[in-house]
Amino acid sequence: MTEGEFMETIAILTDFGLADTFTGIMRGVIFNINPKVNVIDISHLVQPQNIHQAAFLLRHSYKYFPKGTIFMVVVDPGVGSERKPIIIRTRNYFFVAPDNGVLSLAVSEDRVSEIVAAENEKYFLKPVSNTFHGRDIFSPVAAHLSKGTKMSLFGPSMSAIKRLQDPKPKLGEDVLCGEVIYTDRFGNLITNITRDLLDGFTQKKAFKIVVNGQEINSLSKSYQDAERGVPLALFGSFSLLEISVNMGSAEKNLDAHKNNPVEIKLI
Amino acid sequence: MTEGEFMETIAILTDFGLADTFTGIMRGVIFNINPKVNVIDISHLVQPQNIHQAAFLLRHSYKYFPKGTIFMVVVDPGVGSERKPIIIRTRNYFFVAPDNGVLSLAVSEDRVSEIVAAENEKYFLKPVSNTFHGRDIFSPVAAHLSKGTKMSLFGPSMSAIKRLQDPKPKLGEDVLCGEVIYTDRFGNLITNITRDLLDGFTQKKAFKIVVNGQEINSLSKSYQDAERGVPLALFGSFSLLEISVNMGSAEKNLDAHKNNPVEIKLI
Amino acid sequence: MTEGEFMETIAILTDFGLADTFTGIMRGVIFNINPKVNVIDISHLVQPQNIHQAAFLLRHSYKYFPKGTIFMVVVDPGVGSERKPIIIRTRNYFFVAPDNGVLSLAVSEDRVSEIVAAENEKYFLKPVSNTFHGRDIFSPVAAHLSKGTKMSLFGPSMSAIKRLQDPKPKLGEDVLCGEVIYTDRFGNLITNITRDLLDGFTQKKAFKIVVNGQEINSLSKSYQDAERGVPLALFGSFSLLEISVNMGSAEKNLDAHKNNPVEIKLI
Repeated sequence: MTEGEFMETIAILTDFGLADTFTGIMRGVIFNINPKVNVIDISHLVQPQNIHQAAFLLRHSYKYFPKGTIFMVVVDPGVGSERKPIIIRTRNYFFVAPDNGVLSLAVSEDRVSEIVAAENEKYFLKPVSNTFHGRDIFSPVAAHLSKGTKMSLFGPSMSAIKRLQDPKPKLGEDVLCGEVIYTDRFGNLITNITRDLLDGFTQKKAFKIVVNGQEINSLSKSYQDAERGVPLALFGSFSLLEISVNMGSAEKNLDAHKNNPVEIKLI
Repeated sequence: MTEGEFMETIAILTDFGLADTFTGIMRGVIFNINPKVNVIDISHLVQPQNIHQAAFLLRHSYKYFPKGTIFMVVVDPGVGSERKPIIIRTRNYFFVAPDNGVLSLAVSEDRVSEIVAAENEKYFLKPVSNTFHGRDIFSPVAAHLSKGTKMSLFGPSMSAIKRLQDPKPKLGEDVLCGEVIYTDRFGNLITNITRDLLDGFTQKKAFKIVVNGQEINSLSKSYQDAERGVPLALFGSFSLLEISVNMGSAEKNLDAHKNNPVEIKLI
Repeated sequence: MTEGEFMETIAILTDFGLADTFTGIMRGVIFNINPKVNVIDISHLVQPQNIHQAAFLLRHSYKYFPKGTIFMVVVDPGVGSERKPIIIRTRNYFFVAPDNGVLSLAVSEDRVSEIVAAENEKYFLKPVSNTFHGRDIFSPVAAHLSKGTKMSLFGPSMSAIKRLQDPKPKLGEDVLCGEVIYTDRFGNLITNITRDLLDGFTQKKAFKIVVNGQEINSLSKSYQDAERGVPLALFGSFSLLEISVNMGSAEKNLDAHKNNPVEIKLI
């Protein structure tokens, strides 16, 4: 993305919840600096302090937003400590967050063009608290960035950021062992198994999917392909293998949650 | 409503919840196509896959929105199956949803002018998943509609849509038997008994309202008309008979929930 | 604030929750009157009918919003009764709410310039229900105010409003006894003890903080100053003494909730 221009959209992902006034206050701070910017909530219900979940959700949502969107991600258990606030420019977007790995999955995919440490207090809300940098640092920095402030004005450039590792499936001789990495409102179990990985492992041979002793013997196209209450597997909107129950919750039916193994076995 | 013009507002009602990133992603898709449109959340906490609840909520909220508002309703247990995505133009509004009955109560009231099946893939996000048409079909269709794309360009016209039936109260000789059709955050019990129906039945004779053995002997004007903790009945903001408890929850106090009978008896 | 001018922002604080369609309907009503105004949700999850909580949250958030913001606060257990809808103009803002004390903490801090009773039905949505003044009175009044309608047109001026008292800490000889007045999503316990009050009491002498038998012997700068799972105390983003647990919940760890005493003892 070209920097130093007016950007229309700030999209926010946090673990602040909806009951407190944190997210409303951040919008107040942003509109105070740039009343013309469009603010979109991605979600504020990331599990408290769960950097991995936020990184996963960001990676699977950023590309649906307009080019030039500024993503502001505040899941920040280290608020007030040494970790730096950073701004990253990628091929198509901007990202503002603490340097704790929360951006690493998304920016790797979209390719990093420039990283700066947002240290220039000129762009902070004063006094800066030690507990709410979403209000005092990230919101004003994102708002100034949206008005076209050049990245170099926010602070020195950096050459690397903290990175997270996604848990990778393990490949055995007759088994591919993945795991549940996310569950959604409908109780769908999203795994870390991609289509390429599955195809490479099965080589068009017959296979079954095993979750907590329950076997699924084919891939479905849609939730309707199985009867009511019966578990099925498909590649869902995350482009990942997903275990679901038509008109029900796979999470409840299979008693399977985050980190639960999901095995692909040749038959 | 006249079609083929720029519309300012898209109002969204779904069962997607707030924890996942589904609603944020849909806004991203919409703003990518029409950055000038105003997006309003009606609610995203429709009970998962509860088409009746969504139809009820839409019917009791649509008329408070500006003329020309495009309502996008995504409660879609049949996603990926045969049911068609449709666009309906009524006297005052536009509606975009799966053809599963979710629009039927609202559009009947506002009178249908035109129905089309939204089948033209030109207006979809590609590739179209089989599990998230809110992102891949309904959002881009609503966004293109808001930019003034004519209805006929989205697909062939249809002559009828799937309809839902509201549960109707049953009329006996000395009793009118309705039921609770919705409960709100405050524990108010909203019934399917209208003022006209009640007046027609009682003919100005004395009556009592019976819910789970508890009797209420008069209609109140406001929640304050009864003492703290005492059940009362009034015609509330839905223009339906509502059982409430001043400073308390009728749902808890009377242990009454959706489908619970509410009887009107002459005395 | 100068009245009779176009105002860009309406910020809304209610106890309406997110599952019903109340908040979406209010936005519909507002945009119907003023499609250009910017609407910000502060929170809709105030505890049902908890005027004190809403007053506290408003007081600690209003000043982060742009000058001229119209705050609309609907926590209104007396809806439909005698309490008046009011509009208050302060040095920097406007406020619209029922006269039940919910505005009193914020407007005292920002200094009241003018108060009117919003009684002119010309600015209401008709018919006015007795149960949802957020839709029928407060939203249209705030929307007309945002379009520059002069305050005197809404109704007669008033000289006083209903006031709430914050619970004040009690000062003993060797002990300052405050209490928890709010808990947030992270389980932080926010007390009613300000920095000035603490400093005035301790006079730079050594002290300890006691919550449910647990002692904390120093003030931290950030959540990271204590080890994982260990309680700490700091002045947080509310500028109030806050009891927290690094990477955990003080509410759970100390089993302390709203109204729980927090004592400062000289040692």
